[in-house]
Amino acid sequence: MKTVNVAIIGTKFMGKAHSNAWTSAPKFFKVGLKPVLKVACGQDVASTREFAETWGWEETETDWKKVVERPDIDIIDVSIPTYLHKDIVVAAAQNGKQIFCEKPVATSFAEAKEMYEAAEKAKVLHYLNHNYRRTPAIAFARKMIEEGKLGQIFHWCGVYLQDWITDPNFPLTWHLQKKFAGAGPHFDLNSHSVDLARYLVGEVDAVTAMMKTFITDRPLPGVGAGTFKSGSGSKDTGKVTVDDASFMIAEFSNGALGSFQSSRFASGRKNYNYFEIYGSKGSLVFNLERMNELQYLDLENPADEQGFRTILVTNSTHPYVGAWWPPGHIIGYEHEFTHAVADFLHAMETGTPIAPNLYDGMKAMQVLEAAQISSQEGRKVSVADVL
Amino acid sequence: MKTVNVAIIGTKFMGKAHSNAWTSAPKFFKVGLKPVLKVACGQDVASTREFAETWGWEETETDWKKVVERPDIDIIDVSIPTYLHKDIVVAAAQNGKQIFCEKPVATSFAEAKEMYEAAEKAKVLHYLNHNYRRTPAIAFARKMIEEGKLGQIFHWCGVYLQDWITDPNFPLTWHLQKKFAGAGPHFDLNSHSVDLARYLVGEVDAVTAMMKTFITDRPLPGVGAGTFKSGSGSKDTGKVTVDDASFMIAEFSNGALGSFQSSRFASGRKNYNYFEIYGSKGSLVFNLERMNELQYLDLENPADEQGFRTILVTNSTHPYVGAWWPPGHIIGYEHEFTHAVADFLHAMETGTPIAPNLYDGMKAMQVLEAAQISSQEGRKVSVADVL
Amino acid sequence: MKTVNVAIIGTKFMGKAHSNAWTSAPKFFKVGLKPVLKVACGQDVASTREFAETWGWEETETDWKKVVERPDIDIIDVSIPTYLHKDIVVAAAQNGKQIFCEKPVATSFAEAKEMYEAAEKAKVLHYLNHNYRRTPAIAFARKMIEEGKLGQIFHWCGVYLQDWITDPNFPLTWHLQKKFAGAGPHFDLNSHSVDLARYLVGEVDAVTAMMKTFITDRPLPGVGAGTFKSGSGSKDTGKVTVDDASFMIAEFSNGALGSFQSSRFASGRKNYNYFEIYGSKGSLVFNLERMNELQYLDLENPADEQGFRTILVTNSTHPYVGAWWPPGHIIGYEHEFTHAVADFLHAMETGTPIAPNLYDGMKAMQVLEAAQISSQEGRKVSVADVL
Amino acid sequence: MKTVNVAIIGTKFMGKAHSNAWTSAPKFFKVGLKPVLKVACGQDVASTREFAETWGWEETETDWKKVVERPDIDIIDVSIPTYLHKDIVVAAAQNGKQIFCEKPVATSFAEAKEMYEAAEKAKVLHYLNHNYRRTPAIAFARKMIEEGKLGQIFHWCGVYLQDWITDPNFPLTWHLQKKFAGAGPHFDLNSHSVDLARYLVGEVDAVTAMMKTFITDRPLPGVGAGTFKSGSGSKDTGKVTVDDASFMIAEFSNGALGSFQSSRFASGRKNYNYFEIYGSKGSLVFNLERMNELQYLDLENPADEQGFRTILVTNSTHPYVGAWWPPGHIIGYEHEFTHAVADFLHAMETGTPIAPNLYDGMKAMQVLEAAQISSQEGRKVSVADVL
Repeated sequence: MKTVNVAIIGTKFMGKAHSNAWTSAPKFFKVGLKPVLKVACGQDVASTREFAETWGWEETETDWKKVVERPDIDIIDVSIPTYLHKDIVVAAAQNGKQIFCEKPVATSFAEAKEMYEAAEKAKVLHYLNHNYRRTPAIAFARKMIEEGKLGQIFHWCGVYLQDWITDPNFPLTWHLQKKFAGAGPHFDLNSHSVDLARYLVGEVDAVTAMMKTFITDRPLPGVGAGTFKSGSGSKDTGKVTVDDASFMIAEFSNGALGSFQSSRFASGRKNYNYFEIYGSKGSLVFNLERMNELQYLDLENPADEQGFRTILVTNSTHPYVGAWWPPGHIIGYEHEFTHAVADFLHAMETGTPIAPNLYDGMKAMQVLEAAQISSQEGRKVSVADVL
Repeated sequence: MKTVNVAIIGTKFMGKAHSNAWTSAPKFFKVGLKPVLKVACGQDVASTREFAETWGWEETETDWKKVVERPDIDIIDVSIPTYLHKDIVVAAAQNGKQIFCEKPVATSFAEAKEMYEAAEKAKVLHYLNHNYRRTPAIAFARKMIEEGKLGQIFHWCGVYLQDWITDPNFPLTWHLQKKFAGAGPHFDLNSHSVDLARYLVGEVDAVTAMMKTFITDRPLPGVGAGTFKSGSGSKDTGKVTVDDASFMIAEFSNGALGSFQSSRFASGRKNYNYFEIYGSKGSLVFNLERMNELQYLDLENPADEQGFRTILVTNSTHPYVGAWWPPGHIIGYEHEFTHAVADFLHAMETGTPIAPNLYDGMKAMQVLEAAQISSQEGRKVSVADVL
Repeated sequence: MKTVNVAIIGTKFMGKAHSNAWTSAPKFFKVGLKPVLKVACGQDVASTREFAETWGWEETETDWKKVVERPDIDIIDVSIPTYLHKDIVVAAAQNGKQIFCEKPVATSFAEAKEMYEAAEKAKVLHYLNHNYRRTPAIAFARKMIEEGKLGQIFHWCGVYLQDWITDPNFPLTWHLQKKFAGAGPHFDLNSHSVDLARYLVGEVDAVTAMMKTFITDRPLPGVGAGTFKSGSGSKDTGKVTVDDASFMIAEFSNGALGSFQSSRFASGRKNYNYFEIYGSKGSLVFNLERMNELQYLDLENPADEQGFRTILVTNSTHPYVGAWWPPGHIIGYEHEFTHAVADFLHAMETGTPIAPNLYDGMKAMQVLEAAQISSQEGRKVSVADVL
Repeated sequence: MKTVNVAIIGTKFMGKAHSNAWTSAPKFFKVGLKPVLKVACGQDVASTREFAETWGWEETETDWKKVVERPDIDIIDVSIPTYLHKDIVVAAAQNGKQIFCEKPVATSFAEAKEMYEAAEKAKVLHYLNHNYRRTPAIAFARKMIEEGKLGQIFHWCGVYLQDWITDPNFPLTWHLQKKFAGAGPHFDLNSHSVDLARYLVGEVDAVTAMMKTFITDRPLPGVGAGTFKSGSGSKDTGKVTVDDASFMIAEFSNGALGSFQSSRFASGRKNYNYFEIYGSKGSLVFNLERMNELQYLDLENPADEQGFRTILVTNSTHPYVGAWWPPGHIIGYEHEFTHAVADFLHAMETGTPIAPNLYDGMKAMQVLEAAQISSQEGRKVSVADVL
C-alpha cells in the first residue's frame, strides 16, 4: 500500500488524540494510503522524545519551520495552541503540504481568511478538525435532515457548557488570554456549535450577542504541564482578556431562529455539547456526554404515539459504526478523530475535498466575530458585514 | 369559619382550573377563610350555566361590570383573555375587591402599570397567577437558593417550548392577534420564564432579542369551542400579528447572564417549561413535564461523586407537599392553582401581601417590552428605559 | 340527575384519596349518577368528625356494621386496613350494597374467594381498587397491546420498590404484622404488579419465589397518627411477621417469562412501580414516578431509527385525559382514583361489570399465595394448586 | 523495556477487540512489559493472514496445539468459542504459558474446575475476561462499596438484555447449540451479571430459576462470516438446544436478595447490561449503554435533597480515566479490554494475581449450573451442592 508521511506539530492533549487517530484509522478502516508517523515537533526536547516513543513517531524536532519545509513530509498535522495556527498553516500550504488542522481555526476572521486563501492558492487538501461532525449520531442526524425527515427547520438551540474555571484560583493559562486564544468559550466552544449549526441547519445571516467575564484577574500560572508560560513572572495576577461565557441569538439564511450558549461557568457540566433542532416534520436532540445516542421525534407517527425516541447509534449501518463493534457497544471521544483521519486519507487518495475545512473555519469565524461586535456595540450585526 | 365570596370572570380552560382550586384548597389545606363560589361570569348564558352547575357556582352573570360592583363579592377572579384584564382589574380595585388575576398581566407595560397603581391606590390584595412559582420543586429551588446553596449565580437558561400551531391550517385564534394577546409566546410563555427568573435569580437590567413569525397568514377561525370570534367573517385568512417564537438574552442586576427561548414551533414539545441555573456552589435543572422532580448538582460533594441528582420533590417536608400524598406519589398541573388559592386566602386572612402580584406582572412586562424594542430596532435595550 | 348514597369506612390516607375521588369525579367527568357523600365511618369520633367536615360527608359513624345495614346506603367504600376487608365486604354484599374496595383484597386467597363468592351470589357490583390500571399511560399501554402493537409477549419485568422501613427504629405498625396485613410488600406492592401483569400480559401458571425479612424485631409503635395500636403495650419490641422483600419469577399461560421484585428496602425508591414488557413487535416501559410518560419501542420503525420513545400521555385522545388539561399538563396520583369512581358510577348506571374486581383480587391472591408456598418450600408451585 | 510475546487464538470479534487492547495498552498506560504481537491463530489461512496484517501480528498459524507449545510464546490469549476453551487453557497451562482467556469460561462447571486446577498446578498467571469489571464506573462502584458508602447491601437487581435473535429466521449459529456454547444467555450474559454480583455484592448461596426457549427450531446457517458451520448440511432446520432467556433469584452469603434476568428476546435492548444495588446507606445504578455514568443515591444527604445523582465517571481521578481524556470526554467498549491488558501486564511484571481469573470463572459457573438444575427440577438449589 502507498504510504504518506505525517508530521505532527504539538504534543499535548491534541497531539495525543491525533497520534492515536493516525495509528488506529488504518486498523479499523479500509484505507488506500498508509500513514507513516514520521516527525513529532514540540517545544521541549525531552517531553517530545517521550511523546514520540510512546506513539511511534520516528523522529523529533523542535522547530516547526524545519518540519514544514522537509520534502519527505506529505501531511502537516497542526495540534498546537490557536495563535500559532496561521503561520504554520500558511507555511505548510506554501510548501505544498496537505493540512490537518485543529480547531478553532485561528484567533480572528482575518487570520482564517489568510489561511484559507493560502491553502486554496496552493491547491492542497485542507481539513479543520471540528471533530463532532464525525460523531456517528451527528453524521446520522445530517443524513436524516438531508432526507427531509425534519422538513423546514424552525429552530437550532445549541449549548456548549463546561465548568473548569469557576474556581477563582484557576490560573491565567493561555486559554484565558486574547493574544493566544483569540477569545474564551466564544471561540473554543461556540466554534464547535456554529460549525454544527452550519452543518445541520445552514448559514447564519445575522447575530446578536452578550458576553461576560465573571473573574477578571487570575493568578499567573507556574511553569508546568498543561499551562502556558506568560513570560512576566514578576506580577502575582494577570488580566483575563477573554469572555467566560458567550450567549448569542442567530437568524439563519433559511429563516430558522437559533440560540447558542457557551460557558466555562456552568457548574456540573464537564463537556456538555448539546443541541436541539426543531422542524416542521420532526425534531432531534443530541448530547455529547451521551454521544452514542440521538433523540428523534417523528411527527408522522400517530399523534398519540409520538415522543422523543432515543436511538442508540451503534448499528453497523449507522455512519462509521460498521468499523467498530456490535450493536449496543458504544464508542468514545477519540473515535471521532479516527473517523477524521480515515476520511482525510480517503480524500487524499481520491483527490476529493473534505469538510469541514479552512473555508468552514473561516465562515464560522465570521459568525463569531459578528457576535463579538454585537456584544461590544450592543447591536445586531450582519455576518456579511464582517470583512 | 369566616367565609368570603368569590366571583369568577371567564369559564374556559382557566375558569375550570381556578374553579377546581377554589374547591380543593379548603379540603387539602388548613385555611382560615372559607371561599364561597358565588358568581360565574361568561359571555354565553347556556355554557356559563353549565359551567356553574358543574363547579358549584351559585349564580351566573354575563356582564362583568355588574359583577365587580356587587357589594357581596369579596374576591374577583380574572380568568379571561389578556386584553380584558386591565379594565376588569382596575374596576375591581376601584370597587375594593381583592384580585386574583390570570397571567400574562396585560397586553402592554402601560396597562400593567395602570393595573398595579389602581390596586395599590385601592389598597386591595392582588395576586397574579404565575402559577409555576407554586410548583413544589420550584418553591424548593427558591428555598435552596435563599439558603445560599448555589452561591453566586452565573447563568439562567430558560426555555418554554410548545408546538400547537406548527400546522399552517391552525386558525387565527385570539392568541395570534396582537390586539387580543399583546404578543405571541413572548408574552404567553416568556412571561412565565421571566417571572421565574426574577423569582429565582433577580431583576433583569438589559436585554437583546430576536423574534420570528414563521406563518404570517392563517385561516379565520369558525365560531366554536376554544376559539375567539375575530369579527370579520368575510375574509378567508387573516394576518398573524404576533411572534411565533421569541429568543432573548439578558443581563441580570447581579451580573448573571441569561437566555430565554420561547416558541410555539418546537415540534414534540407540548408544555416544555425548562430551566437551568448555574452557580458557584451548585446548579439546578427543572422541567415542567416532570414537575415533581428537581435536579441538583452540589459542588460540595467530593469531586468524584458529583453529579446532577434527581430529587423527587414529594416529601411531606417539601413545600406544599404535606397537604397531599405520601412520598413518591406525584401531583399534577392543577395543584399549583390550589396552592395559590390556599396562599391567597392566607394572605387575605392575615393582611399580608402575596407574590407574584401586579407589581411582578408589571416588572416582567417591562422586560418583555424591552425585548420587543430590541427585536424591532436591532439593539440592546435597558429595561429601565421602558417607561 | 339520579343520586346514589355512599358510605366510606376508613378515614386515613385511603379515606382521603377516596373522598377526593367521589368529589372530583362528577366535576371532571360526565356521569349519569351523582354520588352523595352520606356517611363516614371511623374508629375515633373526633377525628372522624373532622374528616367528614373537611370532605363533606354528611354524617359520621363508628360501627361499620350499622353502616352496611343502613337501607339508604347504595355504595360501601372500604378504605380500611386489609384484615377487615373480608367481614365488611361479605356483610355489604349480603345487604345488597355495591362495593368499592381498596387493595390488597384480603389477607389470604381463602378470604378473597369468600368475598368474591359473596358478591357474586348477591349480584352486586364490585370493584377492587388496583388504581394503577387507570393511569392514562397504563390504560394506553393496554390499548396498544390489544391492538397487537407488541405482538407475542416474551417478558414481563416488574418491580415495585419503596424504602420507608430501612430504619431499624421504624416501629412495628400494622403493615409489618401478618395478622393485620397478610404479608409485607409481597401483598402490598406485588399485588399491584401481579394485577398489572394480568391486565397487560395474561394469567400466571406457575411461580418460584424467595422472600427476606431483613429486620426481624422492631419497636412497638406508640399510639399516634399513621400507626396501629398492637394491643400489647408491655413489651418494648415485637416480631416482624411479614416479608421485607419478595422476589418472584413467573410463567404465564401464553408462554411469557416474567419477573417481579418488591421491596421496602430499596434505598432511594419512594414509590417505584416500574415495568418493562418485551414483545415480538415492540416493547413498553412504565415508571409510576413519571406516570404521565410511557416508553414505546416500535420494531416496525426503520432499524436505524428505532429507539425507546417517551410518549407524554397527555393528549385529549389518550384514555381519561380529555377530562383534564391541555397536552403537556400532567396529572398526579389521585387522578387514578377519580377515574375509578367515574368508571364505577358508569358501570352502576349501565349495569355492566367493572374490572379489576373481587375476581381479579382473588386471582392475584392465588398467584401471591403460590409464591409464598414456593418461598417456604423451596420449589416451583403451580398457581392452580392453590385452592 | 522487557518484552513479552503474545499469541492469540481466535480472529473474529474477540480477536479484534483483544488485538486492539494489546496495541493500545502500552500507548495509554505506563507498563513495565512491552507486549509483542507474535502469532495469530485462526481456522482459515487467508482470513487469518489478513487479520494479522491489519493488527500487526508477526506470524500466523492454524493449529492451536503448535502455538501453545512454542517456547518463545509467553502469553496465550484465548479468543475463540467457548467449547474450545478448556483444551486450550489446560494445554497452555501445562506448557507454562500465562493465560488471558475470554468468557464465559467454559461449557460446564466441571470444565471450568479442570481449567482452574491446571492453571494453579502450573503456577501460571490466569485472567478471565469479564471485562465489565474494568469499566471505570464499575471499578468506582466497587471502590465506593469497599469504603462502606452503601452500608449493608439488601438487593442486587441485575439484567442483561439483548434482542438479536427475536427473528425466527435468525440461523442456528454456534451460540444456540449446547455442545458449542454450553447455554444461551444464561452463560453468555448471566455469567457477566454473576461475575459483577460476586465482585460488588459477594458470593451466592442458593438460587431458583426459570428458563425459556421461545423458538425451538431454526434454519441451519450457511457458511459465512459470523456463523459457525454445524456440519450437517442436509437438513433445513435444527434444534435450538439452549435457553433464549433465563431468570434467576439468588440468596447471597451476606443476606442480600438478588435477581438476575438475561434474555436475547428483549426487543429494543442491544446490550443492556444494567444493575441496581440497594444498601442501608446508599444505592447505585449502572447501565452499560451509558457506561461512563454511575447513578448514586446517598442516604446521608439531607432527606429533602436526596436523589439519584448521575456521576459522569470521566475525572482523571476515577479508575483508569487518567490515562485517557479530560473530564466529559467519554470512552467506549474496547477501553475495558485495554484496561485488562494493562492490568494483566502489571500483574505479570510484579508477580501478583489478577481478578477475575479462572477461579472466578469457576465460581460463576457453579452458580449458573445450580440455576440450570433449579430450572430443570423446579426447586431451589444450593450452590455448594454443585460439585
